[in-house]
Amino acid sequence: MSFQQNTISIIPIQNIPEINPKDDLIKIVTDALLKQDISIVNGDVIVFAQKIISKAEGRIVKLSEITPSSFASKFAKEWNKDPRMVEVVLSESKRIVKMDKGRLIAETRHGIICANAGVDASNVSGGDTVTILPIDPDQSAKKLAEGFKEKLGVEVAVIITDTVGRPWRDGLTEIAIGCWGMKPLKDYRTQRDLKGYELKATLIAVADEIAGAAGLVMGKRDSVPVVIVRGYEFERGGRGAGEIIRKCEDDLFR
Amino acid sequence: MSFQQNTISIIPIQNIPEINPKDDLIKIVTDALLKQDISIVNGDVIVFAQKIISKAEGRIVKLSEITPSSFASKFAKEWNKDPRMVEVVLSESKRIVKMDKGRLIAETRHGIICANAGVDASNVSGGDTVTILPIDPDQSAKKLAEGFKEKLGVEVAVIITDTVGRPWRDGLTEIAIGCWGMKPLKDYRTQRDLKGYELKATLIAVADEIAGAAGLVMGKRDSVPVVIVRGYEFERGGRGAGEIIRKCEDDLFR
Repeated sequence: MSFQQNTISIIPIQNIPEINPKDDLIKIVTDALLKQDISIVNGDVIVFAQKIISKAEGRIVKLSEITPSSFASKFAKEWNKDPRMVEVVLSESKRIVKMDKGRLIAETRHGIICANAGVDASNVSGGDTVTILPIDPDQSAKKLAEGFKEKLGVEVAVIITDTVGRPWRDGLTEIAIGCWGMKPLKDYRTQRDLKGYELKATLIAVADEIAGAAGLVMGKRDSVPVVIVRGYEFERGGRGAGEIIRKCEDDLFR
Repeated sequence: MSFQQNTISIIPIQNIPEINPKDDLIKIVTDALLKQDISIVNGDVIVFAQKIISKAEGRIVKLSEITPSSFASKFAKEWNKDPRMVEVVLSESKRIVKMDKGRLIAETRHGIICANAGVDASNVSGGDTVTILPIDPDQSAKKLAEGFKEKLGVEVAVIITDTVGRPWRDGLTEIAIGCWGMKPLKDYRTQRDLKGYELKATLIAVADEIAGAAGLVMGKRDSVPVVIVRGYEFERGGRGAGEIIRKCEDDLFR
């Protein structure tokens, strides 16, 4: 195959070890890349799964230290859930969007709407612990982008993803909950030339599309938590993944 | 850069001409690939934007031939829309999910929930025409997969994408409305080992993730309507993109 212009490569980073609080993710990624004989280059988008960001930032809760409220206990009992887990979900929630059929769809302090407010019980070592979302995933992404610049001298964008469900469609996908170094929305908006139609809004959520692309090589939860997306010509700048969150007053489903 | 295991490439196919009813998409893609010096190989996923499928299948409506109903006219007048366009949307809808703030979120006969039931007024030549979704996008994908097999002797999967909005998040993304040759959902479901939690459902909508990945190189609407996704090890089989549509009784937002 000859070189193909505008081709994007999605490159899984292998051999990322189990992450612990205060681990240096820049060093860990750099070490893993050495083994893989690959370098990060200017213009790469480095995609991190939320789980390892939360672990490195110590966003881990021990269920044994949680005392569930009466409200959490009632819901847990009705739906056969761990009341301490429900309590953590409620404590991570700003607002409950849906609480039906045993499911808790919540809005987090960041404005992200997802099941269990992003609290995740899978693959956390110890058996009694869950991860919660980073305090500010855009700031987490910014620190990583700055770290790559400082340590490796490269200008990259960083996206932090979470695995979420969606209304109407089965199957989970990755979305961008943190983003730095690139605009998460690409604006193709142009005024329509056909009389009588609305102005055509073509604003593409490219950070979510990059997250989904990375999801294809992330494999089973956590097995490949860092991915390089190479060759996508992003626009520099932006104000983080918070830009993707629709304003409440514009939302038909909140 | 050395060869990286499990890397996925997203390759835009350049020089696809304007598509007209009854055009042979297999021949058009094959001709475009020749110019680009690239071949389709076994295991590729060939991603088509809905617009060119609709055009090739003659799924085009002339607004000048539409007589809007009283209901369509009232809504159009209130929100400054073309009543004929609203009429086409209603005729493509099985059910209206939301009709607020001038927006029509509808469920199509296929079960897809999206704005304007997939009716699209952008970039259709003539100015007076709109495209409607293919009658059966999974069958459209199947015919294309069979066409590639017959003409080029390659076993590929085919995905047909549409550009849709989402609750809670700004910006559009591509989703799979048609799929053939691969399972659209990848099943990582495993029983939890932690007592008291729900069974963990980790079913990934890989066809939607591939659609999103392809969206990154599709560019402005229609400029790159066909994309090769190479190196993704999909599972053969499946029953089409209809598998991704959540059953009404399981849906919290319908």
